[in-house]
Amino acid sequence: MFSVTYPLRFAHCDPAGIAYYPRYFELCDAAIEDWSAEILGCSRRTMHLELGMGLPTVDLHASFAAPSRLGDLLDIRVAVTRVGRSSVDLALDISSGGEPRFHVRYTQVLTDLARQKSVPWPPALLLCLNRECP
Amino acid sequence: MFSVTYPLRFAHCDPAGIAYYPRYFELCDAAIEDWSAEILGCSRRTMHLELGMGLPTVDLHASFAAPSRLGDLLDIRVAVTRVGRSSVDLALDISSGGEPRFHVRYTQVLTDLARQKSVPWPPALLLCLNRECP
Amino acid sequence: MFSVTYPLRFAHCDPAGIAYYPRYFELCDAAIEDWSAEILGCSRRTMHLELGMGLPTVDLHASFAAPSRLGDLLDIRVAVTRVGRSSVDLALDISSGGEPRFHVRYTQVLTDLARQKSVPWPPALLLCLNRECP
Amino acid sequence: MFSVTYPLRFAHCDPAGIAYYPRYFELCDAAIEDWSAEILGCSRRTMHLELGMGLPTVDLHASFAAPSRLGDLLDIRVAVTRVGRSSVDLALDISSGGEPRFHVRYTQVLTDLARQKSVPWPPALLLCLNRECP
Repeated sequence: MFSVTYPLRFAHCDPAGIAYYPRYFELCDAAIEDWSAEILGCSRRTMHLELGMGLPTVDLHASFAAPSRLGDLLDIRVAVTRVGRSSVDLALDISSGGEPRFHVRYTQVLTDLARQKSVPWPPALLLCLNRECP
Repeated sequence: MFSVTYPLRFAHCDPAGIAYYPRYFELCDAAIEDWSAEILGCSRRTMHLELGMGLPTVDLHASFAAPSRLGDLLDIRVAVTRVGRSSVDLALDISSGGEPRFHVRYTQVLTDLARQKSVPWPPALLLCLNRECP
Repeated sequence: MFSVTYPLRFAHCDPAGIAYYPRYFELCDAAIEDWSAEILGCSRRTMHLELGMGLPTVDLHASFAAPSRLGDLLDIRVAVTRVGRSSVDLALDISSGGEPRFHVRYTQVLTDLARQKSVPWPPALLLCLNRECP
Repeated sequence: MFSVTYPLRFAHCDPAGIAYYPRYFELCDAAIEDWSAEILGCSRRTMHLELGMGLPTVDLHASFAAPSRLGDLLDIRVAVTRVGRSSVDLALDISSGGEPRFHVRYTQVLTDLARQKSVPWPPALLLCLNRECP
């Protein structure tokens, strides 16, 4: 199970002093960026610039349990919950000091950027994904 | 039915040249900000700074049908689909030139910012919400 | 003299309830985007996607006179102060209700995106720039 | 001399595939946030929420030498170049793999957030600043 910890920075907080939710999605995207490099062995630079592929989100569901405050350390766990021919479902659970803050369920699809079409997972990536999927 | 049109700016686009989805949520939040001022007669400045209340998101579900490109004009429709004692469900449908791009279903809860507790809708706001809800 | 007015939104404000300055630069960039479309007759979509050119900033100097608050209407004036072979100096002055808030002085350089090299202004754009420059 | 390294993420890049400069300022602000916690012994959470003070920017000058690309590791050095009664000048130099990318010169002023007035440095912070200033 991959996890990463980021601080909730001043830049992420709103006038109410708590996390502004569009910024949460940037932190989740950063976590998926780090997950991809470590678990798939494929950085986003490689995926985009060398392979010409992206992993756009086609569906996401987020649920917010408790607000986060400036300076909180957010632990983000990234789990693979389903692997399709060219798609993947990711479950991100975010907590701070053990207290659940929010979670996001993603469906993302591997896409050829030039043709804007979904493409099947290359075997090497599929192997990594299946190893992560329970 | 409230709707607003914003351009998809350079700032909203990713290295693939299409909208970066965390930025989509900022545009949706701007639309809700404008909807609140027009439909509820309550700007976010008034809500936050005078009433000491906020409308945080507790749940959202987004589905992305087609990518948006730099310079696209995004039409964002905001509909009230349910009104609770202190909550509201909003349906945002975003299209460009008639082509659906994505939609988001929100549940938001009116919250006293100082006490971080939900509060019932003031009668004046409730009236406006019910008028919008089919 | 080109000018445009944008609201200072919730998304632009920090936990102190005032504009977060990196967000100010997004608003200035939006103003330059609108200025380019109107004064140069060249949208950023056209410049980037059709002409393969960009206008990156090589130097900027910003000075902040007074804070801006949620809901303020920001008037942004964009003036051309110098036109070079492939560069332009822009002066952006931002006020609200007549009160100066901040200004930014930019030097930007027309750049061929594929070769990452500066290129001279095409005659049509140069004509527009010189017409704006006092 | 304080320094910190952040990756240039997908979220920071524009449709030209290079860093979008308003995002650069968020990275610089994160570096100042980390510098404050380490060098001043005062996190931004403490400064804002406990002391009721902020360190807004009153002047900044940025110069961009070379573009940064998705996945670049940015080394950000933060140096104190002048300490005033209630102000500080900071010099941030950003490079990647030893190649200079851009620098920013800041003047920031310690401010009482409730009264929106500058305040003199508390002795403990002044000591830390003077120790850093050559």
